[in-house]
Amino acid sequence: MTVSINIMLTNEARWGIIDIIVKRKNKKEIFIMNYRFSDKVTGLQASAIREILKFTSLPQVISFAAGNPAPEAFPSEQIGEIAAKIMSENPVAALQYSITEGYMPLRETMRKRLLFQNSYNPEIDDVIITSGGQQGNELACKVLLNEHETLICESPSFTGSMTSFKSYNVNLVGVPCEDDGFDMAALENTLKYATNPKLIYVIPNFQNPTGTCMSLAKRKKLYELACAYDVMILEDNPYGEIRFEGDNIPSVKSLDTEGRVIYVGSFSKVIAPGLRVGFVSAPKDIIQKMVVCKQVADVHTNIFAQIICNEFVNNYDFDGHLAKIREIYKKKYHLMISELEKNLPDSIKFTHPQGGLFLWGTLPDSVDMKLFCKTAVERNVAVVPGVAFLINENEKCNSFRVNYSTPSDENIIKGTKILGDVAREMLS
Amino acid sequence: MTVSINIMLTNEARWGIIDIIVKRKNKKEIFIMNYRFSDKVTGLQASAIREILKFTSLPQVISFAAGNPAPEAFPSEQIGEIAAKIMSENPVAALQYSITEGYMPLRETMRKRLLFQNSYNPEIDDVIITSGGQQGNELACKVLLNEHETLICESPSFTGSMTSFKSYNVNLVGVPCEDDGFDMAALENTLKYATNPKLIYVIPNFQNPTGTCMSLAKRKKLYELACAYDVMILEDNPYGEIRFEGDNIPSVKSLDTEGRVIYVGSFSKVIAPGLRVGFVSAPKDIIQKMVVCKQVADVHTNIFAQIICNEFVNNYDFDGHLAKIREIYKKKYHLMISELEKNLPDSIKFTHPQGGLFLWGTLPDSVDMKLFCKTAVERNVAVVPGVAFLINENEKCNSFRVNYSTPSDENIIKGTKILGDVAREMLS
Repeated sequence: MTVSINIMLTNEARWGIIDIIVKRKNKKEIFIMNYRFSDKVTGLQASAIREILKFTSLPQVISFAAGNPAPEAFPSEQIGEIAAKIMSENPVAALQYSITEGYMPLRETMRKRLLFQNSYNPEIDDVIITSGGQQGNELACKVLLNEHETLICESPSFTGSMTSFKSYNVNLVGVPCEDDGFDMAALENTLKYATNPKLIYVIPNFQNPTGTCMSLAKRKKLYELACAYDVMILEDNPYGEIRFEGDNIPSVKSLDTEGRVIYVGSFSKVIAPGLRVGFVSAPKDIIQKMVVCKQVADVHTNIFAQIICNEFVNNYDFDGHLAKIREIYKKKYHLMISELEKNLPDSIKFTHPQGGLFLWGTLPDSVDMKLFCKTAVERNVAVVPGVAFLINENEKCNSFRVNYSTPSDENIIKGTKILGDVAREMLS
Repeated sequence: MTVSINIMLTNEARWGIIDIIVKRKNKKEIFIMNYRFSDKVTGLQASAIREILKFTSLPQVISFAAGNPAPEAFPSEQIGEIAAKIMSENPVAALQYSITEGYMPLRETMRKRLLFQNSYNPEIDDVIITSGGQQGNELACKVLLNEHETLICESPSFTGSMTSFKSYNVNLVGVPCEDDGFDMAALENTLKYATNPKLIYVIPNFQNPTGTCMSLAKRKKLYELACAYDVMILEDNPYGEIRFEGDNIPSVKSLDTEGRVIYVGSFSKVIAPGLRVGFVSAPKDIIQKMVVCKQVADVHTNIFAQIICNEFVNNYDFDGHLAKIREIYKKKYHLMISELEKNLPDSIKFTHPQGGLFLWGTLPDSVDMKLFCKTAVERNVAVVPGVAFLINENEKCNSFRVNYSTPSDENIIKGTKILGDVAREMLS
């Protein structure tokens, strides 16, 4: 029953569902037992605000709340072809236990690609395959931080990563951001005064939720500060390959001369998320510890999926495929932003991403953001309240996240009109 | 390079490889940086003794050291057929993000099977899909234990699980076992005097490494003690379906009236391990916390693989398939035990499993076990030194583990002869 409600929910929406179930259950006491959970898990609270998101599963709701890539961007036919080939030629290789570090040919493929992108330095780094980028982020936190030590992230940032860090009971501190990345003075202050800071988590390209990029100047400054304060950087780059406009900005990893950067990538947005394949490029010593922790987490990533990714990248014009999906997202983005700016009052400001899946709208102070989101979903259009991306959801935030990769063109046009109606009513 | 060495290694062997790499690397200092790892990871030490296992990767070595299911037991053709069907009928369902709890039809399938096996109680339990049984065991530890709290396991026990528990810096205590399970007096003593015991980890069926089963009487006593001392039980049952002789013994979970048992199962030994699909049946409150932790670990398990498992279990005579693989393992076991007993001196005693993948040999005190294993591998036959399955590898143990699922019949005959030669030389 739970699942039929959940099935259409976005990633972030699902974090909230737990809370709903808990509340439902508490009404009907089934057990006598009172479980003694670990402190790190007891502290994991889903929020009331996310209850709004449960409505996004209703069939009549137009969801701009998803985090899913566009299904038309999946190379389904090619994956079917590759899967059939693997199963006819060498099924045992795809079905037997494999090694934790990942399928060797795929590691080699990614080493080459990352080398070309300056995000892998053979002198200091190694590359492993993970079960999605999410696992890379979790492992980085696990191997580096003790409970109560400080992990710094952008504020706002990706809920999934933040909950992952919280699940290790670290002191998670958010640093406010400008359009081009961290407020650097605030970052330095945090590095100076926080309890044993060890890691800075950033999504430099088309950040989730804002869609903005960190400038090269700030990437350099970030790296300098990491060196000065002897901390590591966790660079999460799931959207970097989906730049549909503007010029690439060098990765933070490309600036890494001291072995301070753990770079996490993913096939979720460029091949398909259901396969759960990601990768990490990081200093060899770090990789070794991550491998031990991955081994005890899931032994290795589904090997069938690893072979599929490797075949697709090498033998199916991967760069042509990327060009194609960039074109899909570019069109969807331009439709979304033009409809938003046409239908919503000028006092509502939007970021203008050059890639990725999301943009970020900010309401004037006179409008109550939570009420705006609630009213919108009651009129069958869902956006994600910005507080969902804060460490403490009681902090002030008058923004909301809009996804343009999942809705159809028709729903983008229809949904933005409704958002416009709601906004105008609330402003009047 | 690392991987080409690793590629043929068994699961357990791979734990040791890390150590070898670390040692190799330490000789050649590449970085200036001295990484500050978390305490839980710093404590993860691979052992010197496992260096023996690196030889098992050499092509001339007959390996009885594996933990792999027999590849001829994989339903490769059927999996190929199912994969093709999924990709032609509804590829998006297998490629898009899915929900953390698992593919609903597979959860429903497993609820039914587990209900029939009395390992799922709809009144108190729920069932989720995990990335192999390994993830179920790790999540149970994460949600229940703080650092330094006590987790009790059988001694010897499965290395992968023990390292997983160690990676949360818990106080891991091993309780000695008899042929039918725990020494119950020792277990009660541990429950009485250990620091905040919270969880007892057991593999009641065809235990890894010994191959023995816990008797029903001891399962009942175990459950009674868990109630008396208010601790939870983690029942790991990857081998239960591979009983090739004797009668099934009710699971510990089937005795659970208070919601104290977390039951972990896996498709690795009954379909294919490369797919990384397992499942957990546990009290709903526990499941909810596990879901939050799974979500931040890998979002969800590869959905393509989940659909494959569900289709196979429901539409491809799964019980007939189980009967077939039991027959394969029965033959292999009988060949192994008869050749061992024929070729090795009577003073070496073996367990006589009625299922699973392993048996356990114990040398007379006069023979140095580590030297026996080392000499055997130098003569190109690998078994796993028993100390690899202890919490503290410096403890006394004169046993070794033998796997019969992976080697060919020819290699079983050839390898046992060599083991016999080594044993006779060392006894003389």
